[in-house]
Amino acid sequence: MDPISAPPRRYAYVDDGAAIYRDSFATIRRETDLAHLPANAERVAVRMVHGSGQTDLASDLLIHDALVDAARAALGAGAPILTDAHMVASGVTRARLPRENEVLCLLRDPRVPDLARDFGTTRSAAALSLWGDRLAGAVVAIGNAPTALFHLLELILAGAPHPAAIIGVPVGFVGAAESKEALASFADEHGVDIPFLTVRGRRGGSAIAASALNALAREQE
Amino acid sequence: MDPISAPPRRYAYVDDGAAIYRDSFATIRRETDLAHLPANAERVAVRMVHGSGQTDLASDLLIHDALVDAARAALGAGAPILTDAHMVASGVTRARLPRENEVLCLLRDPRVPDLARDFGTTRSAAALSLWGDRLAGAVVAIGNAPTALFHLLELILAGAPHPAAIIGVPVGFVGAAESKEALASFADEHGVDIPFLTVRGRRGGSAIAASALNALAREQE
Repeated sequence: MDPISAPPRRYAYVDDGAAIYRDSFATIRRETDLAHLPANAERVAVRMVHGSGQTDLASDLLIHDALVDAARAALGAGAPILTDAHMVASGVTRARLPRENEVLCLLRDPRVPDLARDFGTTRSAAALSLWGDRLAGAVVAIGNAPTALFHLLELILAGAPHPAAIIGVPVGFVGAAESKEALASFADEHGVDIPFLTVRGRRGGSAIAASALNALAREQE
Repeated sequence: MDPISAPPRRYAYVDDGAAIYRDSFATIRRETDLAHLPANAERVAVRMVHGSGQTDLASDLLIHDALVDAARAALGAGAPILTDAHMVASGVTRARLPRENEVLCLLRDPRVPDLARDFGTTRSAAALSLWGDRLAGAVVAIGNAPTALFHLLELILAGAPHPAAIIGVPVGFVGAAESKEALASFADEHGVDIPFLTVRGRRGGSAIAASALNALAREQE
């Protein structure tokens, strides 16, 4: 078989991965106002803007003062990442994780369809009930389903163990904005202060969730 | 062990998956102008807006007149989906595929790091050279790396087999907009007319790519 050869270069473009990251982050820092965010969350915000391709995402970002330290400490201690969506799990760069942390999505667990029917909710939401005690001290990332974020808050109010940090960025047109407002006002409304990160409004999704996780996993850009 | 029970409902939200989709798509149709797109691409555009959480994504959408028919025919004939990113592959709803089509990302192939070094490009780009003859008639989705989209166009100009359709929606600040302009002008500049779909500018990404694929895989919403 012929060895695989490079096609002749026909376009002019930056082809060095490290340079692409460096130039991207520099562009984002030139164009983005992050003054409303905690100082130690700057790199998290930059990476989320990077994952979304939109500098104005920053204005919708809301990051708890303790989020970065809480998530870093948890991951550094080996805590798992629990997520509602396989796309989020797939987007976590394993080489950035400090302790080869487990990244767990139970959406395809065979118990989920029955559980969703019994609970009268979506499979994305019901799957969270299978996390059980693994919630204690975990880093939770909800990157897809608003129902999953509501369900997580309801689990905590019903006495489930508290995660160390919640990345709550479901996307969409039905319930997404509302679920994220519920997360943002959780401490005020229910007296349970869990460090969180969210994006107000309809935007969010698995790429943004994975970007946040990858920034939290390792300080180095 | 205690059976898993539902936490008491503490928030009011739509919890029926089918209703969430229906209401979401209705909201998108109320708020979005899709008149500039081919009529048979309407559901594709709606699902991409849905995946992004942004109605104004539609104004950046560019869809070739033959894209929907070409991609549907290819998938219906059992063509594979080839993609640059595991997140895209992870976002394809397998139950929507008409022929249990293969969904292939070769980014973790052990040959990729050496190939990227030899080629002087990113791993995302180099991995595409491993697709070989599988490119013929495939549906290609570039949802992450601009270098991968440039590399794909260079492969085709170097004589690689033609895919049936190209979903070209890399995201970001370095090369993304340029790579998508190269895709959009490929027929005019090089006389090779391959049906494509793209999002002009910086926006794009794996969720948008997966949304497009899921809409093309099955006409039914």
